[in-house]
Amino acid sequence: MISVHLEDGRVEVRRRPWPRRRPGEALIRLIAAGICNTDLELQRGYYNFRGTPGHEFAGEVLEADDQVLRGRRVVGEINLACGRCDWCQRGLGRHCPHRTVLGIAGRPGVFSEYFTLPEANLHLVPDSIPNDHAVFTEPIAAAYEILEQVRIPRRTPVAVLGDGKLGLLVAQVLQASKLEVHLYGKHREKLAIAAAAGIRSEVVPAKLPVAAYDYVVEATGAAGGLKQAIGMTRPRGTVILKSTVHRNVSLDTAPVVVNEITLIGSRCGRFKPALDLLRKGKIRVEEMISARLPLADAPRAFRAASRKGVLKVLLYPA
Amino acid sequence: MISVHLEDGRVEVRRRPWPRRRPGEALIRLIAAGICNTDLELQRGYYNFRGTPGHEFAGEVLEADDQVLRGRRVVGEINLACGRCDWCQRGLGRHCPHRTVLGIAGRPGVFSEYFTLPEANLHLVPDSIPNDHAVFTEPIAAAYEILEQVRIPRRTPVAVLGDGKLGLLVAQVLQASKLEVHLYGKHREKLAIAAAAGIRSEVVPAKLPVAAYDYVVEATGAAGGLKQAIGMTRPRGTVILKSTVHRNVSLDTAPVVVNEITLIGSRCGRFKPALDLLRKGKIRVEEMISARLPLADAPRAFRAASRKGVLKVLLYPA
Repeated sequence: MISVHLEDGRVEVRRRPWPRRRPGEALIRLIAAGICNTDLELQRGYYNFRGTPGHEFAGEVLEADDQVLRGRRVVGEINLACGRCDWCQRGLGRHCPHRTVLGIAGRPGVFSEYFTLPEANLHLVPDSIPNDHAVFTEPIAAAYEILEQVRIPRRTPVAVLGDGKLGLLVAQVLQASKLEVHLYGKHREKLAIAAAAGIRSEVVPAKLPVAAYDYVVEATGAAGGLKQAIGMTRPRGTVILKSTVHRNVSLDTAPVVVNEITLIGSRCGRFKPALDLLRKGKIRVEEMISARLPLADAPRAFRAASRKGVLKVLLYPA
Repeated sequence: MISVHLEDGRVEVRRRPWPRRRPGEALIRLIAAGICNTDLELQRGYYNFRGTPGHEFAGEVLEADDQVLRGRRVVGEINLACGRCDWCQRGLGRHCPHRTVLGIAGRPGVFSEYFTLPEANLHLVPDSIPNDHAVFTEPIAAAYEILEQVRIPRRTPVAVLGDGKLGLLVAQVLQASKLEVHLYGKHREKLAIAAAAGIRSEVVPAKLPVAAYDYVVEATGAAGGLKQAIGMTRPRGTVILKSTVHRNVSLDTAPVVVNEITLIGSRCGRFKPALDLLRKGKIRVEEMISARLPLADAPRAFRAASRKGVLKVLLYPA
């Protein structure tokens, strides 16, 4: 089988033996995978990563202990938790200190014709969700995580900063959850996707509104985004940090203290609400697919994914 | 009368006319005032401040519209709110966008023999609280603000980073509120004050505990404190930012996002709970008074207050 291999900034395609399935794990055939900004960060050396990346996928279960799973279409949660610690007992395996993370830390990823994942991590994909859309389950779950962490009253105006993949999904998930989303971005063609979903979208003005929102989601992926987000937040308001910027950010904490602003880091979420949103057709993902390439063309796919203006690049086994 | 005057880093004592009392305001004779770190920051040029600083005080009302106040001992909230905007209507005049702030922004402060303040800002000081202790009402209220913003279950271990004036008050206020405080500081003699209040106090070890607390209060006043606080916080935990550091802080936001940590800025608080704590003798403030000087010696008092190891410096009218 072939797998993508990242090392020292290079993207290679390697031939490898099939992975060995351990008890409790499923052997999965890749149907489609998505390149996430984290994969591009891994290529740049984040986490000193070396190996097979990839954590957004739809796949078919070939072998599993659980008969129900065999032959079924699945998506999978990316944190492989120990299942025994306090965090796991509280249902927060996503924060298990002993965890490995699919394609990110300590576990080979899904940019591979075949891979394994614990059966406990898998969710069946409802028939009505196309393969390419199912790949978005993981980032949609990450967007939905905001609603699990912060209770935002219905109809509240929420600013989303950033019209990249994550910003567009966050905007749509919040809009689908009856919040009044104002999306601020730099790219008219990306904002148009949000606008089609009924979201008020604005090309970032020369001067962003000051102290205008009780809730602001920072999804720019840029080092300057946090400062902008804080400036847009009203006293006692909340900034939700979705971007992982793997550099030090220069931050003036005085306005955070003086205005008693809350900053909340937000990462992965549960898959169930994400699959529900996809099943109900609440999220426009089709327009977010910029390119489709075979695994064998991974180097080209990574280059495409890192180009300005490109949204989701999907990879296929053949 | 004499007043302290700050300008271009200089501390001067100037002779001035008595202030004019407007309707709704009280004319107050200073009994005692405290030098806060913010006053030292103002001296360094923060807010481009020029004028009379000072916002921690106990005073005697000489004139007021409200008969009840005349001749009484008072302390006063430092935010002068408009009383009409949404914030004020919600009881959050501390965030009124039209506010001035006593001795900090747009309003002469209390390092002056006489000064005025709206009667609405005043609180009578219970007889059992000595003058010098009443001066601590404002910073104790700021410490108590944490408990108004974050609901922390009783007996929860809370780390407080920093054994300066604010750290010592935060530690005592939280301990008095039945939390299990662990104070981390650098000065044995300061930590001893907390220890006398029954607080577990530790000289900052070479390696601070990692991901050990659900709640960490950053009160170091140093640029590096936030990073330390984040490192000590468990996933999904909360860091409360009490220090205003008037410099940009370099921050790696990745651990905040990955561990879904909440950072909450926390500033001024209500005076009532602070006066209650002082009245019940729950806060050891006497040991926190490092020096007592007359207003006329303000330059010396400011120098003393900025010296390492010095805690509260009090000023008196004569």
